[in-house]
Formats: sequence, C-alpha cells, structure tokens
Amino acid sequence: MTTDRLTRQIAFVLELDKLKTVARQTLLVDGSRRETDGEHSWHIATMAHVLAEYAPPGTDIGRVTAMLLLHDVVEIDAGDTFIHDEAGALDKEARERQAANRLFGLLPDDQRDAFRALWAEFEAKATNEAIFADALDRMQPILNNFATQGHTWRLHTVTADKVFRLIERIDRGAPALGAYTRELVEEAVRRGYLAGAG
Amino acid sequence: MTTDRLTRQIAFVLELDKLKTVARQTLLVDGSRRETDGEHSWHIATMAHVLAEYAPPGTDIGRVTAMLLLHDVVEIDAGDTFIHDEAGALDKEARERQAANRLFGLLPDDQRDAFRALWAEFEAKATNEAIFADALDRMQPILNNFATQGHTWRLHTVTADKVFRLIERIDRGAPALGAYTRELVEEAVRRGYLAGAG
Repeated sequence: MTTDRLTRQIAFVLELDKLKTVARQTLLVDGSRRETDGEHSWHIATMAHVLAEYAPPGTDIGRVTAMLLLHDVVEIDAGDTFIHDEAGALDKEARERQAANRLFGLLPDDQRDAFRALWAEFEAKATNEAIFADALDRMQPILNNFATQGHTWRLHTVTADKVFRLIERIDRGAPALGAYTRELVEEAVRRGYLAGAG
Repeated sequence: MTTDRLTRQIAFVLELDKLKTVARQTLLVDGSRRETDGEHSWHIATMAHVLAEYAPPGTDIGRVTAMLLLHDVVEIDAGDTFIHDEAGALDKEARERQAANRLFGLLPDDQRDAFRALWAEFEAKATNEAIFADALDRMQPILNNFATQGHTWRLHTVTADKVFRLIERIDRGAPALGAYTRELVEEAVRRGYLAGAG
C-alpha cells in the first residue's frame, strides 16, 4: 500500500523531470546544442567528486553534491537567468523564492524544509560547501565556453572584465581552480573569443 | 601554474560532457524527446536524496550518489544498451570494461583506481549502496514510461513479465519502492501500456 508520504515524494520526482527541458545559454563541448539544466547539474555534481581536493579543508563533498543536484530546481518555474543578464537579475530572487515554495512544497514537510534549507545555503554562499559549489557552478560554463570558441560570450558580447569578476568567486571556493580558469580566459582573450575590456 | 594532475582532471571533466549526447530509450515525462544519459544520471542521483529513507539501514547515500553520477560514464564509448536488448547484452560487459579503462584512465592514477572501483562496485551489485543505486536506476525509467503511456514498452513490444523481473531488483534495494513500482506496472497493464504476458 502506498503511503501519502511516498505519493508526495514521487510527485516531486516526476516534477524534477522538467529540469531536463530548461535550456541554458552554455553549449555542449561539441557545439551541437545548448545544454539543459539537468545535464549541467549532473556535470557539476560529478566535478565536485573529481575536483574535491581543491575545496577548503574539511568541506563536506556529500553536502556539496546534494546542493549542486538541487541548486537549479527552482528554474523549473523561474527559468534560467543568464549570469550577465542585468535586467533578469533584478527580480530573479523573488521569482526563485516563489518557485522554491511551490516545488519543495510538493515534498513531505520535513523534506521540504531540509531541501529548502540546502537551496538557501547555496544561495547565501556563506559556508565552505556553498562557496565551493558556487565555484564549480561558475567554472563549468567557462570551460564549455572556451571549448566552443567563446560562443556564448560572443553571442552576448560579454567582455573579459565581467568574466574575471566571476572568477573571483572561483578563487574564493578553490584558489587553484580560480588560477586555472583565469589562465584559460586570458588565453581566450588572446584568441579573440571575448573582448578584453568592458 | 597548472599541474599535470589538474590538467588530467580537466581533460576528464571535458570528456564527461559527451554523456550529454548519449540518448537513452526513455522519453522525458512530457514526451517531447528521449532523455540523455547526463539527464538520467542527474535524475537518479537526486532521487537517491529524495528516497534515501527506503534504502537498507546504514546505507551511505553519499556513496550511492557518487556511484549514480558515474555509473553511466562508460556509455560515452560503449553507448546505451537497452535493458531488454538481448543481443546487445552479450558483449555489453566487454565493451563497458574497455570504456572504463580508457575513460577513467584519463584521470590521475589514484582517482582512476577509485572511480573504477566505484563503477565496478555498482556493476557487481553486492553492497547495500550498489543494490540501492541499481533499484533507482531501474525505477526511474518505469516512472517515465508510465507517464508517457508506455512509449518505450510499446515501441519495443516489452511484456509485463520482463518488467516484473526487473522490479525484483528494486525489491532487493528498497522493498517499499518495489511495491510501489509493481502497483504502477499492474495499472499500466490494465491501461494497455504494455502486454500482460510474454
């Protein structure tokens, strides 16, 4: 016999499927199409395991992973806001908070509260886990952008100074990964994948 | 300065991107297209957190999650073998072993060994973690198949007895989820989403 608890959990699991239909600005490395939020979330959650050694000592990688798996779920309702979209940024927080209420509200109350807290922790970027998770979330699009000759940077006329400001967030969570990414973006400027100044 | 170790790790991270181009048989819940391996891996890794309470007591969910994030990486080289494809099953093991050698071999030696061991543990289905991971990997396509009126079952003329045999693997890892899935497939038979007998 199926309990009400399991019924609610399965409703959430089915709702999650919609994250596979949210397209991001980032192209796949092979340039064939834009990646989906589901794919991006998998990629960075896996990166947390590959690059765990660069996190601050004592960082709980299991918690980072859970955060990364859930961090974009609000975009099922709120959509993906491009990181350099200043107009979209204005009401992003309100849209995402409303989405969190509805989506995590599908779950039993204890899980609603736990998942919402994990999402809020990611958004606040105050714990080691959230800061490292954010670093990976910032790094992966830069890797894919470099691999696709700066496709998204060129499409939106993003300048290097804006990307370097994002890299400060990678520095915070994982200095070695920040340094790597900075070298990559300097090379991107040399190759003309993005403009050097704002 | 970038170390050789980080260079190898980033090469693996970029290679991972290809899992977003491996199409599975399962449709998205909205029926719009087949899901990719990257999306599927994200979905079941997230399910591990939502449904953790149904795992055997003492199951390490962090380890289950790591296993699920990595379990399909071999399909970058070996492709997705449909669970009911008996011809494809014959050489699946050899193809996937070779893929594991090449793909995990991109990593520094210690990580190559650790990730390969985690993948081998998943394949052997002998630990609580592997058995629970396998249950989720079996359950998700059934949920999506039911939501799409049995699309993949009908396409490949899969009969209920075969699906019920897979559900025994869900029972092993999470009896409550096995019972839920069995009820769902019984309802699918009543609705004509798949044929009742082999």
